Parts: sequence; structure tokens; C-alpha cells
Amino acid sequence: MELLIQKIKQMGNPTVVGLDPKLEYVPEEIRARAFSKLSAEFDAFECAAEAIFEFNKGLIDALCDIVPAVKPQSAYYEMYGWQGVRALWKTVEYAKERGMYVILDGKRNDIGATSEAYAAAYLGDTIIEGSLKHAFAADSLTVNPYLGSDGILPFVEQCKLNDKSIFVLVKTSNKSSGELQDLKVGECSIYETVAELVNSWGADSVGESGYSAVGAVVGATYPAQAAELRKLMPNTYFLVPGYGAQGGTAKDVAASFNSDGLGAIVNASRSIMCAYMKDGGDFQAAARAEAERMREDIVSAL
Amino acid sequence: MELLIQKIKQMGNPTVVGLDPKLEYVPEEIRARAFSKLSAEFDAFECAAEAIFEFNKGLIDALCDIVPAVKPQSAYYEMYGWQGVRALWKTVEYAKERGMYVILDGKRNDIGATSEAYAAAYLGDTIIEGSLKHAFAADSLTVNPYLGSDGILPFVEQCKLNDKSIFVLVKTSNKSSGELQDLKVGECSIYETVAELVNSWGADSVGESGYSAVGAVVGATYPAQAAELRKLMPNTYFLVPGYGAQGGTAKDVAASFNSDGLGAIVNASRSIMCAYMKDGGDFQAAARAEAERMREDIVSAL
Repeated sequence: MELLIQKIKQMGNPTVVGLDPKLEYVPEEIRARAFSKLSAEFDAFECAAEAIFEFNKGLIDALCDIVPAVKPQSAYYEMYGWQGVRALWKTVEYAKERGMYVILDGKRNDIGATSEAYAAAYLGDTIIEGSLKHAFAADSLTVNPYLGSDGILPFVEQCKLNDKSIFVLVKTSNKSSGELQDLKVGECSIYETVAELVNSWGADSVGESGYSAVGAVVGATYPAQAAELRKLMPNTYFLVPGYGAQGGTAKDVAASFNSDGLGAIVNASRSIMCAYMKDGGDFQAAARAEAERMREDIVSAL
Repeated sequence: MELLIQKIKQMGNPTVVGLDPKLEYVPEEIRARAFSKLSAEFDAFECAAEAIFEFNKGLIDALCDIVPAVKPQSAYYEMYGWQGVRALWKTVEYAKERGMYVILDGKRNDIGATSEAYAAAYLGDTIIEGSLKHAFAADSLTVNPYLGSDGILPFVEQCKLNDKSIFVLVKTSNKSSGELQDLKVGECSIYETVAELVNSWGADSVGESGYSAVGAVVGATYPAQAAELRKLMPNTYFLVPGYGAQGGTAKDVAASFNSDGLGAIVNASRSIMCAYMKDGGDFQAAARAEAERMREDIVSAL
């Protein structure tokens, strides 16, 4: 988490841009260029994947000096097949090359042995005939806690070995998140129980900054719960989705920050990727302007 | 779920073979052939992916007339990069070609809009420039319920549209599954609460067989809970991991079946894939013999 915090401080910007590139978000010009290559050897998935990567590349170029991190959402690549997943890999590589912190949003989870495989895939190394190789060299991965400690600890292990981070789902931003997460177990809700587990999973990876390698996903759409969780997890960095399109305001996300102005990074995806649709003109300039507006909006609310 | 049940009945075999192809499970001969192609243009990931697909192909050929389904575990492909994910796609295609039911074990989960993208990726269609394309044409997908209904319903929608199925994590087979799943909310545990949700998500997709399109993952390692869940979810098909290597016996898995001999499909992965390591000889013959042994073991316990 130290690397992320350092980048956030350097840029004075506690935000992350979600790269969720549905094909219909990609500017017509980029799409047309990619699909002009359509042929028997270069099918629709290849064209879609190329369009997506070109769009991401343009966004990264436009944002990398003012935004510390990107968060590609795996679903929007998987839906374009293995070609889409190759575009995800290229996006991760390019964002790293441009100095951005990469939070891969996969919400992965499984039993221990399989979590080890996911941890190797995104945060560690895959051993191939005796050599260590990076499958996807992300800095961070989102994970789901439903299987308990032995599904999470393989990720924590890779965080410690390779100076990476994870964000565990605690209180998610969607409408039905309360169906399970808000249920009361004695005095505590499930999300508070998960918060305690997050504290324990992160306890021995607290860095110089005071934050551990094990972060938490806390939705902007539940500011009261966020404020409560902020107190319960003083050493935990929050990844905050739900700002903008989902209804969370700057005032709402402020609840996820500590008094030092740190402790949270706020995501926006569509509002930045598709800014050009609203304001017209160049998608890069529009995305940059919206990213600056979002930064000011949030920083001024802290 | 109807198609799966039909295949299980036809073959008299309520088992599924997990395809979790770590490279070290692949027979030396197949590995050597794939890695002989290693070059600047065909890197270690390409070689690994080719070896994995050849192994899977051999297993599918050896098993497709006696085992109704395969369950590729996504992690073991993702760890070999986008090339591994291409091998996953080829595996799905090949298994379907040989008539097997394909349960993709991805334990995917997210907020509604993103679950729609995952559902399109694995159970539905991706729209590319106005045409519908299959990214991964699986029959079924495992999903995680932590986000509640609006993270699950997009999958249910695709099941109903395309005659597919999902298996929702209810009580998982791992040691720490109880940390969250066993917590008591009033009279009920979390896994029982999820079971009730599974009933409601599946209520309007109960087919001729009496089972809905929304199944449940129930670990063989918790037979008492399985017996309880069997009563609680009479119309739900169970996907049962944890037989064999994880310690579940045929007697343990029997708790997940209904009195008609239906209601559950039991998974084994490593014991079948790696049978040749124990018994020596041809990996195909060894896998087939172990699959037959497992079928007899389970059928005789019902």
C-alpha cells in the first residue's frame, strides 16, 4: 500500500480511474479504425479488444500525470473473450509503464489452494518449467471474503512478499449489499465482522504510513456505515466505489478519509471514460477535465 | 439445469471432473512436446497454455462417454496469463464439442451492471457492433452471493434466456468456511440465509425435473450441514466439492442427494487428473479408471 499512498501524496489526488471499457464507450473514430481490420484472421473479438486497448491507452496518456491509479474491471475484458483478457494484460503493462498504480478489480475468491493460483496470477509469479513469470503484473487485487481466512491469506502472503496490496469487500456500494452484509450477528453486522477480519489479516503488514497491505472496499453510497468502519479500521486503506454515477457525493466519500486526508481512494469510471459524450470534443481532454473536477470536488470536501 | 440432469441420468453418473491443470500435473511427454516450440515468437506462457490444452483434450477424450460434465477452474488458467485464458476458451469449446456439460468455476461476483458483463461473458452473448458473439460458451458458472440479489439476478436472467445454470456458494468445503458462513443471525446461520435466497432466486426457473436453474455449492467436508441444506432447498441442485483429496467420502456426499438419486453432482479434480502419477502408465487410462472407481464409490453409497 505504501507505493499507492506515495503516489496519492505526490499528486495530491486521492482518486482512481476505473477502466471499464464497454465497446459502446469507445469513441467512434477508434472503433472504426479497429473494425476496419475485420477479416477471417482478425475476428470481431480481436477488433473489439484492439479498440478497447487503444481507448485505455489514450485515457492513461491523458491522466497519468494527474491521477495516481487505474482500476481495470476484469468483467469488461472477459466479456470480449481471451482477446479481451489480452487487452487487459496490455492495459496493465501500459499503465505500469506510465507510472500508474494498477488495482485489478476481479473480486477473486476460492479455497486456499485456488486462491494461491489467483494470487500468483495477479500479485506474484507463476512458475513455468522452473522460471518465474508474471502473468498479470498488477499492484493490487480486489477479493471477496465469503470463504474466510484460508481463502484470503494466500493473497496476503503475496502482498508481503512482493509489496502488493489487496482490497477486501466489506460494505459494497450496490442497493442489495445489505441483504447479507447488514445482517446482525449478535451486536455486530456481518460487514463489521469482516472489518475485524480485515484488521487481523493486515495486522503484520502495517507500513511506514500507518496503513496495512490489506485494504477494504467501502461504498460511497453508505456514508454512515463508512464513518463507522473508518473508526473500526484505523490502519486500513479504503477503496471507495459509488461516487458519481451510483449517487455518492464528495461529502459522502469524505466519511472514508482519516483526518490526515489519507485513508481512502475514490473511484470513478464512466463519468471519466465517457466525459467526451457529455461535453463533446476530444475524449482525452474531456477525461482530463473531468478527472481534475473530481479531484477538486473531493479534496475540497476533506 | 435440465440438460445437466439429463446427462447425469443417461450415464448413471452424478460426478464432474475438475480441470485444474497446474503445469506440474501435465504428463512429461506433453510438456516436452509443447516446450520444444519455445522461441522468441512462442513464449513460455504459450508453451504452458498449449501443454495444458493438450492435457485437457486428452482427459476429455478419455472421459466424455462416462462422465457428464467438466468443471474448469478459472484460476489455473489465469495464472498462465491471457494465453492460459485462451486455453480455457479452447477447453470449453472442445468439451462442448465432445458433448460434455461445462461448469466454469469462476466464483464471479460484482454489482449489478458488472454482473451483467460477467453473465454475458460466460452464459450469454456479447454485443459487438450489433452482432451477438459468445465469449466463453459455458453451460454454467459458479458465483459468490456476498453482494446480495442485485449481483446475482443478472446471472439468473441469462440462465432463463439461454437455458444455462449457476451454482451459488452456500457452504464451502474449506476449513475456514465457518468464519462467516456459520455465524448465527438470530436462529439462522449465514449459509442458511443464503440458502433461502437461493430458493427465491431459483423459484421461477424450476424445470420438468423439479430442479431450478440456480444451484448451490455445498462442500462434501460438512455432511451434517449438507443434510440440513438438502431439506432446506428441495428444488436446488448441489455442486459438491471436497470429495477425495479434501477428505470428503462417498458417505459424506450422500447427504447432498435426494432420495431419487438426483440433486447433486460431486466434483473430483486432482485425483482424476493425476491418477497416472499414482498408478503409472497412460494418463488417459488412469483417469478413466479413477473416474469409474469414483462413480461406483458414490453410486453404491446412495
